[in-house]
Amino acid sequence: MDPYVIQMHSKGNLPSVLDVHVNVAGKSSMLGKMKGKKARWSVRPSEMSNKTFNPIRAIVDSMKVQPNPNKTTIALSIGDPTVFGNLPTDPEVTQAMKDALDSGKYNGYAPSVGYLSSREEVASYYHCPKAPLEAKDVILTSGCSQAIELCLAVLANPGQNILVPRPGFSLYRTLAESMGIEVKLYNLLPEKSWEIDLKQLESLIDEKTACLVVNNPSNPCGSVFSRSHLRKILAVAARQCVPILADEIYGDMVFSNSKFEPLATLSSNVPILSCGGLAKRWLVPGWRLGWILIHDRRDIFGNEIRDGLVKLSQRILGPCTLVQGALKSILHRTPQEFYHNTLSFLKSNADLCYGALAAIPGLRPIRPSGAMYLMVGIEMEHFPEFENDVAFTERLVAEQSVQCLPATCFEYPNFFRVVITVPEVMMLEACSRIQEFCEQHYHCAEGSQEECDK
Amino acid sequence: MDPYVIQMHSKGNLPSVLDVHVNVAGKSSMLGKMKGKKARWSVRPSEMSNKTFNPIRAIVDSMKVQPNPNKTTIALSIGDPTVFGNLPTDPEVTQAMKDALDSGKYNGYAPSVGYLSSREEVASYYHCPKAPLEAKDVILTSGCSQAIELCLAVLANPGQNILVPRPGFSLYRTLAESMGIEVKLYNLLPEKSWEIDLKQLESLIDEKTACLVVNNPSNPCGSVFSRSHLRKILAVAARQCVPILADEIYGDMVFSNSKFEPLATLSSNVPILSCGGLAKRWLVPGWRLGWILIHDRRDIFGNEIRDGLVKLSQRILGPCTLVQGALKSILHRTPQEFYHNTLSFLKSNADLCYGALAAIPGLRPIRPSGAMYLMVGIEMEHFPEFENDVAFTERLVAEQSVQCLPATCFEYPNFFRVVITVPEVMMLEACSRIQEFCEQHYHCAEGSQEECDK
Repeated sequence: MDPYVIQMHSKGNLPSVLDVHVNVAGKSSMLGKMKGKKARWSVRPSEMSNKTFNPIRAIVDSMKVQPNPNKTTIALSIGDPTVFGNLPTDPEVTQAMKDALDSGKYNGYAPSVGYLSSREEVASYYHCPKAPLEAKDVILTSGCSQAIELCLAVLANPGQNILVPRPGFSLYRTLAESMGIEVKLYNLLPEKSWEIDLKQLESLIDEKTACLVVNNPSNPCGSVFSRSHLRKILAVAARQCVPILADEIYGDMVFSNSKFEPLATLSSNVPILSCGGLAKRWLVPGWRLGWILIHDRRDIFGNEIRDGLVKLSQRILGPCTLVQGALKSILHRTPQEFYHNTLSFLKSNADLCYGALAAIPGLRPIRPSGAMYLMVGIEMEHFPEFENDVAFTERLVAEQSVQCLPATCFEYPNFFRVVITVPEVMMLEACSRIQEFCEQHYHCAEGSQEECDK
Repeated sequence: MDPYVIQMHSKGNLPSVLDVHVNVAGKSSMLGKMKGKKARWSVRPSEMSNKTFNPIRAIVDSMKVQPNPNKTTIALSIGDPTVFGNLPTDPEVTQAMKDALDSGKYNGYAPSVGYLSSREEVASYYHCPKAPLEAKDVILTSGCSQAIELCLAVLANPGQNILVPRPGFSLYRTLAESMGIEVKLYNLLPEKSWEIDLKQLESLIDEKTACLVVNNPSNPCGSVFSRSHLRKILAVAARQCVPILADEIYGDMVFSNSKFEPLATLSSNVPILSCGGLAKRWLVPGWRLGWILIHDRRDIFGNEIRDGLVKLSQRILGPCTLVQGALKSILHRTPQEFYHNTLSFLKSNADLCYGALAAIPGLRPIRPSGAMYLMVGIEMEHFPEFENDVAFTERLVAEQSVQCLPATCFEYPNFFRVVITVPEVMMLEACSRIQEFCEQHYHCAEGSQEECDK
């Protein structure tokens, strides 16, 4: 999820002081009489809106740089697989929507948690013996973003904290801070294919920790956790009694050499809210159909958390009913070939991109195993012109018209993120321009002449 | 908007005490060492979810009564015009969606406030010389519910208050209280066709009043304010410097003998956020396409409120892109005949229902001028068997299988609300059953024998 493509005139993140309306007496006898009432217009945005902060927008907006007019722009920055037109959804998905339209049955209000029949379909699609699901365990939401919002909103109070991966998707922070929930960052280790630093993770947990956010497969890393690593994560959660919000929006989007394991299938005691949706796997992020899968086999969430989610869903009343009505066909009729083709394309592009960037002195790409991203380390000591990843990617735009997100957007400086959904020719062209750029700016670090001679 | 049709197991509205995790030391040496960490599972729903309260659900769920098995149920309780199939949307609306699907252009993320082109369409559709609109004044939302949520969220802090009509739509309270915003109720006067008691309204305003919610045409009243009454409301807001949230989701849905005046067209100084959407006029409430129109000709909201709305929109990223893509055609190609036919039907049903109920001793229906509802006063002194409107409507279900919402759901006891979107034969049958019910339970009030002899 990466839909921050609008122009926004953010003026920073500082909560403004609560506006106090002081009556200026004497302006008129009428006003003078009304003690405590407002004497003049003064409308200020709420603290919540002031606290709603999008780091990607703030960083990208601060990069005031124009692409090189002599080179067409290649955007490797937008986490939307549909922008280049090379990854259309399957015709069965489109047909399912037309059938839902023609039926005339899906124009009215659905229950705020979604139609029962649609929830049954999602439950049976994701049900497995080790992590059984029924309709009552499914809540449909307006995209995976709202799924995450509801989970955080039901689990955490202002003043509590949540544990979030670094590097990680910025929406967790945006949502949490808007609700007055503190974010604590646990580290992912690039040298271990972005596995979690479990010891450091565990050290962050305190009595105010409301949940652990696990994003697998990962945006921005493209990493996929092994079964044994997932078991270790669960062991921490079980030991510390911290429930898990599993952001699995890239679930099943893994390359042939890895396997996606839904977190809930590996645990029988840790309560897990798994968030997903149609956005990525079915290539329709704009349709805003997400879901929460409630896994609670030890009845730790109990009815209270379930009821809380239902109540919160009533605040904006769920996703578009047409997409809900089409869900059954989307889940059952989309051919396996469609998923296979998407993944083959992504793996091929990932290999191509990894290979090309790994050969460039000064860059250290980390090979992805799934999702749609690849993270690239910048050996900043070899690029002394640039203060950081933001300056590096900014100049890359100015000179080569290649747009990548600096990983400062994901709280991980000196990396940048590449989106691998672009057509192959663009991927190749982009890599070649990045190579040219790096060659032009690469400097040998002091005392390493030998390496530079290579 | 009235989409509360799900089963919910609400356990009341009391915020639970914030869960404090006390470490029970000694269970293991490992745990004993980790000061302040959790020793056992204890996951509690947040205060926000505890405060999210749906009065309709709470009241309806408490009515544990079965319909009369010998009579088919007639639901006059659900504010969804699509449930009976007699009010389909226009074929042009369906075609617009198919065209959007076939274009393949509306599968990706839109900006969180909506596509620029779609916002331009809404702006030009609702633009008028006295209340000009451009794309920058439009934010698309996931239904009118989210529009209202964003407006309240940007204007009010916890501890502030908003002014809400009584009787009025319950979502205002649900949303406000979930955010810690106090609700103050101003009175609508049935004897004045539900005009606002302006003096009482003004007396409620204090230094903590963040906005005035004006719902016109009204749910549940079906009333439509005259231009002169709207001017008086604006005068209060201007004098007290209180911005207005105008819930105009039933805008343009008025019968031939009245006229809908968008509030913003009558004021050049009061800042107004007008909320609307496709739900009612285009008969597709499930599609969740709403909007906020920002009217701020004196620059009182300024960029701060606009930016605040944009930031808040990024929390769940706007409505389904397909519906956004279809907006232009929906707004321009839907034939006038469609709107006309809907309103003719509603007016005919309203007249029929009003006429029938007005002839029933003990009932005092108020004639509606728009929207989809009619409020009926119950002369409780003539129905001494029933404690209140809840008991009255409960027994009406048990004996006649006619479901109406007791107006206690709208904070207005001793009335009930009738939805007038049902097919004419059902409307007639329902009125006849209500008549039978009233005749069976009507008692002359003490000292009014004369009246009863009539």
